Amino acid sequence: MDYRKESLKKHAEWQGKIEITARVPVGSREELSLAYTPGVAEPCMAIHEDVEKSFELTRRWNTVPVITDGTAVLGLGDIGPEAGMPVMEGKCALFKAYGDVDAYPLCIASKDTEEIIRSIKLFAGSFGGINLEDISAPRCFEIETRLKEELDIPVFHDDQHGTAIVTAAALLNALKLADKRIDEIKVVINGAGAAGIAIAKFLMAFGVKDVIACSSRGIIVEGDTRFNPVQQELAKITNREKLTGTLADAMKGADVLVGVSVANCVTKEMVRSMAEKPILFTCANPVPEIHPDDAKEAGAFIVGTGSSQYPNQINNVLVFPGLFRGALDVRATTVNKEMMMAASRGIADCISEDELSREYILPFAYDKRAHESVARAVAAAAIETGVAKIKK
Amino acid sequence: MDYRKESLKKHAEWQGKIEITARVPVGSREELSLAYTPGVAEPCMAIHEDVEKSFELTRRWNTVPVITDGTAVLGLGDIGPEAGMPVMEGKCALFKAYGDVDAYPLCIASKDTEEIIRSIKLFAGSFGGINLEDISAPRCFEIETRLKEELDIPVFHDDQHGTAIVTAAALLNALKLADKRIDEIKVVINGAGAAGIAIAKFLMAFGVKDVIACSSRGIIVEGDTRFNPVQQELAKITNREKLTGTLADAMKGADVLVGVSVANCVTKEMVRSMAEKPILFTCANPVPEIHPDDAKEAGAFIVGTGSSQYPNQINNVLVFPGLFRGALDVRATTVNKEMMMAASRGIADCISEDELSREYILPFAYDKRAHESVARAVAAAAIETGVAKIKK
Repeated sequence: MDYRKESLKKHAEWQGKIEITARVPVGSREELSLAYTPGVAEPCMAIHEDVEKSFELTRRWNTVPVITDGTAVLGLGDIGPEAGMPVMEGKCALFKAYGDVDAYPLCIASKDTEEIIRSIKLFAGSFGGINLEDISAPRCFEIETRLKEELDIPVFHDDQHGTAIVTAAALLNALKLADKRIDEIKVVINGAGAAGIAIAKFLMAFGVKDVIACSSRGIIVEGDTRFNPVQQELAKITNREKLTGTLADAMKGADVLVGVSVANCVTKEMVRSMAEKPILFTCANPVPEIHPDDAKEAGAFIVGTGSSQYPNQINNVLVFPGLFRGALDVRATTVNKEMMMAASRGIADCISEDELSREYILPFAYDKRAHESVARAVAAAAIETGVAKIKK
Repeated sequence: MDYRKESLKKHAEWQGKIEITARVPVGSREELSLAYTPGVAEPCMAIHEDVEKSFELTRRWNTVPVITDGTAVLGLGDIGPEAGMPVMEGKCALFKAYGDVDAYPLCIASKDTEEIIRSIKLFAGSFGGINLEDISAPRCFEIETRLKEELDIPVFHDDQHGTAIVTAAALLNALKLADKRIDEIKVVINGAGAAGIAIAKFLMAFGVKDVIACSSRGIIVEGDTRFNPVQQELAKITNREKLTGTLADAMKGADVLVGVSVANCVTKEMVRSMAEKPILFTCANPVPEIHPDDAKEAGAFIVGTGSSQYPNQINNVLVFPGLFRGALDVRATTVNKEMMMAASRGIADCISEDELSREYILPFAYDKRAHESVARAVAAAAIETGVAKIKK
């Protein structure tokens, strides 16, 4: 099936992928008096006296906007705020279906970092958490960091951390099959935008010691001012041997390649140069860095991609519904590293040792067990790290 | 029943009066590929090429945020943004139930006029129209005026115009029973905030020539600098005899009193001083300007109030669901005076001559006929005045 063509047709038929429904009856004078005036004055005053009550007396506790500025939508780039909305609506449908989270799609017509931060903050009292989406680097880093600092609800930039969390989950399971220790592997990450940088840092949190990041300019090395400030920061903690050169140079002897870059930039030759039992997560979309068949022919032990056409789809749909479900359930005030690591383990652990195979290292995106597992793990980590307001 | 106490209990049980539901299936690989990646890229690019397509390929066409800054919530005053949310959610539930409009509740933590305007504008690409709510005067005038000028979707401040539209509807039907002509009556409006000022102007658009507005300082008269700038503007077109004095002075010989002020500020004596067959719309909430029984005893011909406890509730719930339904159906680029006047007539006309009585001048808020009648009338007026992008 030509999904894009069929999808356009379907979108025109659907006229929207989500809608609002009323949870209360308003069909009589009495019902109106309870859900609306005059009765509604009482919950209003209760919140006026204690703003925390907004999580109990309105839908705030379960409400997350999916916000984009339309600058980095899928692989399509800066296509404008309104043009990002089909993706945002899709995420909202997934939030509901897999996490029972009430998510609103919102697009913002600004590329000004301060203006985006300020506007989101002004509306934050409406929400239980905030999901940032498809905002281009490097603005996305500052926007997320500042909102996390300045708000006391979970803030999560899915393109960075959703991708990092599911990649780590894939790696945890792949290493079980390859029988390698996470602190002994060498990982090359190709692509140093929002996702690549987040993946690098996150894998190091999981114990990876040897990470080399590459951009289209080649290996990122400390002191090379051709790289942007965020990449130069990353260079201080990665590539400790100060290797220079191309992606091909970086991949020699590597155990793992994570690609979040462009189609067909990896050759069979480069795969052959890797360590034994090489693991390739080639997530460029829609066409991966190397075709999975070619990678396998060149000796790849495990291949994952961003596409549902091949086995082992590394899909952040596995992350955000459960992550927010868990965070909202315990009214977490933030999303911290421990919660994100718990999410990775929650995904990895829901495949049993019996099920685990080189063609099945991750659950399918529509596997409800996975989302429930993530939610449980994230809620527990929030409680454990003291950021949960509800401890159940 | 003690509605306020019961309402608080219900709100705690409900945990929110609205929720988001998915309109599309996302339970399989194939379904995900259509509603989300990779298929979704195609509708994204279609909107990128023509932003108008956002009304066809996403839920934008049916989506209206109900936005407050929490400064004038019900009669409770400035209780803060989060505390206004139970009202906003209630309106969203009503929007859906009566107009099939998908409305999101949003609160904004700012009282700065420019900041509110800017923030709403930044998010406007997400919406098909904008409903402003419970924003205090005089900021609400500037916010609405500017948003109307600067956006090409319908913008509507319900506290001003919703109240004015339903009051006019009530007046149209009351005058039929009193057998008076609208251009021959004298109308006194007590209360010169957002609602009072909007009512004054709107009734004049319907042909009322003699309007006297009063605030708590007494009759508003041209040149009296004790009144705020918006009230002084109003004084240039009302009270042409330049009457001064109190509400009691204004009411002598008046055919109609519209009260949007405070409890018990009107006496029987004042009602007795009015013209024959006096009409009183005493909408102070929850306690009217004069008890309906007292007004009747003093000779009132027709009494309407803001409360559902008495006959003739003058309730703007009759307006907003149908008004936005009509505007969205024809993709109106604004809400103009003609559309608002059509809404009044739509409400008034759905009570037949046989049904019409001094105790039944308005349909009940939960009467679906009324909302459908408003929607039809508003859509027709939008087409007629050339502000509709769809002409069906």
